[in-house]
Amino acid sequence: MGLNFPIKRPARQKVINKANLGMDFEAIINESNEFYLNNDIAVIHKKPTPVQIVKVDYPMRSKAVITEAYYKTPSTTDYNGLYRGKYIDFEAKENHNKTAFPLANIHPHQILHLHNIVKHGGIGFMIFYWAPYNECYILTFDIVEKYWNEAQTGGRKSIPYDEFLQNGHLIKEGYAPRLPYLKVVDEIYFNNK
Amino acid sequence: MGLNFPIKRPARQKVINKANLGMDFEAIINESNEFYLNNDIAVIHKKPTPVQIVKVDYPMRSKAVITEAYYKTPSTTDYNGLYRGKYIDFEAKENHNKTAFPLANIHPHQILHLHNIVKHGGIGFMIFYWAPYNECYILTFDIVEKYWNEAQTGGRKSIPYDEFLQNGHLIKEGYAPRLPYLKVVDEIYFNNK
Repeated sequence: MGLNFPIKRPARQKVINKANLGMDFEAIINESNEFYLNNDIAVIHKKPTPVQIVKVDYPMRSKAVITEAYYKTPSTTDYNGLYRGKYIDFEAKENHNKTAFPLANIHPHQILHLHNIVKHGGIGFMIFYWAPYNECYILTFDIVEKYWNEAQTGGRKSIPYDEFLQNGHLIKEGYAPRLPYLKVVDEIYFNNK
Repeated sequence: MGLNFPIKRPARQKVINKANLGMDFEAIINESNEFYLNNDIAVIHKKPTPVQIVKVDYPMRSKAVITEAYYKTPSTTDYNGLYRGKYIDFEAKENHNKTAFPLANIHPHQILHLHNIVKHGGIGFMIFYWAPYNECYILTFDIVEKYWNEAQTGGRKSIPYDEFLQNGHLIKEGYAPRLPYLKVVDEIYFNNK
């Protein structure tokens, strides 16, 4: 699939700027959520990055400036909202490895949160962007949790690419929205094609 | 009702420190959500304050320090989550007025967001803390929206206290959690007593 980045890079240009691509992946999800919101399809938002604000200045005639703050560890995933009457919750991950996604890139609080979501009747999953293949997959949370639990008890510390090919759900590229992931959610969770 | 603030103030002490009380009201909601989470009753979190981060320093041997950032206007309410399989979303407001809650204290994006939530099948409401009476009420979103729409077309610019007495839902004080608002949600949205 192609994610339709604004500038088409020639195929030979293999060097990937992780920071920029990261920004693009997040931007593409946010843009897709905006499309879903504006078209009255779903209400899904990215949660703001949690920050501990320590010092704020109020310069005259201008708005408040935060001059000292620190990043805090989030206690949830990045995205949640409401779709077709159901609570939906997910985390988005990029992978730059070719053979497997290292579980070290998932934080324990994300696993715990998604575990609680599924337990309480919500829809929980992860979206993975495989940069080397320019492919996006949804893995339902039960699969992620299976690998996570195995890793905790001495099993492998990553999810192989093959698992995505076998049991993942490819998100095909789109124009509006660019990442039509709710079409895949329809198939997985609403038995819709 | 009493909200069980840590220090019982004598009745004669009428001067209210709005900033501290605001902190307490938010803290009481957060503490109640933590109780609900730890007791496996609901997964409801406060969204972090959205901040536009402009400059970050990385001093040696210590964690990143944000040295320039600005508050951004949120596009949603403060709280959302999952309860009894349903998406739940609310905003919390304090009122220091004795006769009415001024609608100027509600932001248009909060109305728009809750409107979308209810339209898509979620549970949407507002919790109001009436400081002069030390009472907390839930108003279902349809009532808030009715007053909001009337105000837009020349009607009154506030919700009278009487509306809360007539059609609001008082949240009785509790010990665990201190603000047992889900008990009231049960009554309103799940027909439970």
